[in-house]
Amino acid sequence: MAKRCEHSWARTGVLGTPHGEIRTPVFAPVGTQATVKTMAPREMKELGVSLIVANTYHLYLRPGAEIVARLGGLHEFMGWDGPILTDSGGFQVFSMEHLRDVDDDGVTFRSHIDGSEHRLTPEKSVAVQEHLGADLIVALDVCPPYPSDYDHNLIALDRTHRWAERCLKAHTRNDQMMLGVVQGGTYPDLREAAARYVTSLDFPGYAIGGLSVGEPKELMHNMLDITIPLLPEDKPRHLLGVGSPEDLFEGVWRGIDIFDCVLPTRVARNGTFFTRQGRINIRNSRYSDDPAPVEEGCGCYTCRHFSRAYLRHLVIAKEILGLHLATLHNLHFMIELMRTIRTAIEEGYFASLREQFLGAYQTTEYEAAKRDRRAWVGKPRTSEGVLND
Amino acid sequence: MAKRCEHSWARTGVLGTPHGEIRTPVFAPVGTQATVKTMAPREMKELGVSLIVANTYHLYLRPGAEIVARLGGLHEFMGWDGPILTDSGGFQVFSMEHLRDVDDDGVTFRSHIDGSEHRLTPEKSVAVQEHLGADLIVALDVCPPYPSDYDHNLIALDRTHRWAERCLKAHTRNDQMMLGVVQGGTYPDLREAAARYVTSLDFPGYAIGGLSVGEPKELMHNMLDITIPLLPEDKPRHLLGVGSPEDLFEGVWRGIDIFDCVLPTRVARNGTFFTRQGRINIRNSRYSDDPAPVEEGCGCYTCRHFSRAYLRHLVIAKEILGLHLATLHNLHFMIELMRTIRTAIEEGYFASLREQFLGAYQTTEYEAAKRDRRAWVGKPRTSEGVLND
Repeated sequence: MAKRCEHSWARTGVLGTPHGEIRTPVFAPVGTQATVKTMAPREMKELGVSLIVANTYHLYLRPGAEIVARLGGLHEFMGWDGPILTDSGGFQVFSMEHLRDVDDDGVTFRSHIDGSEHRLTPEKSVAVQEHLGADLIVALDVCPPYPSDYDHNLIALDRTHRWAERCLKAHTRNDQMMLGVVQGGTYPDLREAAARYVTSLDFPGYAIGGLSVGEPKELMHNMLDITIPLLPEDKPRHLLGVGSPEDLFEGVWRGIDIFDCVLPTRVARNGTFFTRQGRINIRNSRYSDDPAPVEEGCGCYTCRHFSRAYLRHLVIAKEILGLHLATLHNLHFMIELMRTIRTAIEEGYFASLREQFLGAYQTTEYEAAKRDRRAWVGKPRTSEGVLND
Repeated sequence: MAKRCEHSWARTGVLGTPHGEIRTPVFAPVGTQATVKTMAPREMKELGVSLIVANTYHLYLRPGAEIVARLGGLHEFMGWDGPILTDSGGFQVFSMEHLRDVDDDGVTFRSHIDGSEHRLTPEKSVAVQEHLGADLIVALDVCPPYPSDYDHNLIALDRTHRWAERCLKAHTRNDQMMLGVVQGGTYPDLREAAARYVTSLDFPGYAIGGLSVGEPKELMHNMLDITIPLLPEDKPRHLLGVGSPEDLFEGVWRGIDIFDCVLPTRVARNGTFFTRQGRINIRNSRYSDDPAPVEEGCGCYTCRHFSRAYLRHLVIAKEILGLHLATLHNLHFMIELMRTIRTAIEEGYFASLREQFLGAYQTTEYEAAKRDRRAWVGKPRTSEGVLND
């Protein structure tokens, strides 16, 4: 890790993978079913995307990890030659409260597609991820819901630690970097114990799980403040499933290197566009004859060629191109924001950039959410919400 | 019109418009709601698309022709700086048998979106098309269904001719070329009368309507054989709403210059891909681990980067990227086919190209249709089918 901000734990770095270098901090779009929804790989290259996340649970069920392996692995399968991270599959399985049954050895669950029964163990998760062949993989953990009581979290954490050991032992490919997951819910002593234990296993990198699952933002920040200082400085840190534009600033501030989240792509498909002033929902009738781009000065293909009026027309008329152009804009926004953040860290003005961004963004973010109740403004806890990106 | 095939009425030419030249014969993708479904304008440029068709009925209802005009016209609105043709709106209105009422002056109809009542007259159709500002526009006609009796067709044809005169009179923009429409159903004497009458009005170009609406192919060819020799040689001829790959050969053979059809884009969204050997439906389980491209040697982005197995996965998993990559391939297929046809006409081997193509294509086309009954294999006569592209 190269540069450090003098006011915070923010840092920049370069993470090497068999499919190229990743400049950190980085935002990774989510491609649940081996596709970042609506985006062709060449368009992601154009945006400067340097890491994408694919989903072990989904790809295990469909098309199946062996098929992906036979076709040359996930990179070849989906036509993306840049770095990929696969998650462990645990988050999706544990989100299906009525369809799964956990024990010390693993978890039995039913497919959300056809109801068929399956068994996920640490060894199985690693085997599936080896078949998929991502550059970064994640150890299987137990994800308790929020809120959940202390004892529940204690049992979950103990299993997470046993499973972490088993994942390391089961892992055979030396071209994949496995991240150990720090859990502990919203209990400071469990977070601390988790960080100490998982780092003792000497993973090449660490992920922080179980946050942004419905708890207040302050609590998430508090957990990060407890956890991150216990992680080794020389290894990458991934905050799983986070975040929004403002989350990037709060995470980077505390020393996170890797983020992934469905938010930019999911809200895009509802007609929500990110801007420096906050989110706007293009369905609003005020845009019906607005010739301006979504954001003046934005360099993305959408903003360079199309008016708010046209984008509104496409979304209202349920045209696929509208979903695509919104997705493209929101990903551009996140990638450019992260580029700006990296430059600010390296040139020493990250603290003032953060203050300025959050001042301009959060107010209208809140107002936009109030204005358009259809806009998605939090991470849903339902299986439906978790199972789709 | 420059070159002529020595065995047939096939010909090549160049049609000048305010937004560029169109090399004919040409296939125009349909962008009903001011977007060729799933395709960004830059992707259509890349494919070599030189003309697109937009829909007056749909754009009049949503977002409204005045809004499009205020935003600079259809080219500016949809970010497409190449030639555009708008139809008259008549075909859609007449397809809604239970929602419209025709008289000598025009037709009253209800919106398929919100049930609101509207009135379409020749003058209104021209006014809307002037607001939209396409390069090529079409005179309002009456489209009888197939089959329909002689008297019905006679009345419809008489109205079509009165309306053609009124459209010419109402047209004020001299940067738009208006096509007169030859109707007459499947009655040889009506087709002949229509061709003689409409050409007497001296339109700058002619369209042939009311074909490919459910009648046998032989009947369509027969009507073309009667109509086309009566059209002036020095003006462009558009066969409205046609066609399939094999229709291009039959139409070009008889002297058609312009084709438009939703077929390549519509069947794409069902997972159907065109190949030189016929259509294939990628949902078929035989493709589940097939590493080959849809068509070996095809130069489109889809075939250069993705396997049949991946495309099948996308379509089965209902991923938007699957619809897009299929659409892109099918449009590439049509555009390349037309390029090959133009070269063959100019170099004198169109007759043998046609024989070779139809020999290889039609058999498997039929087999593919039998194999996958979900594939769309004809132009539906329902409003639902007609109102969507």
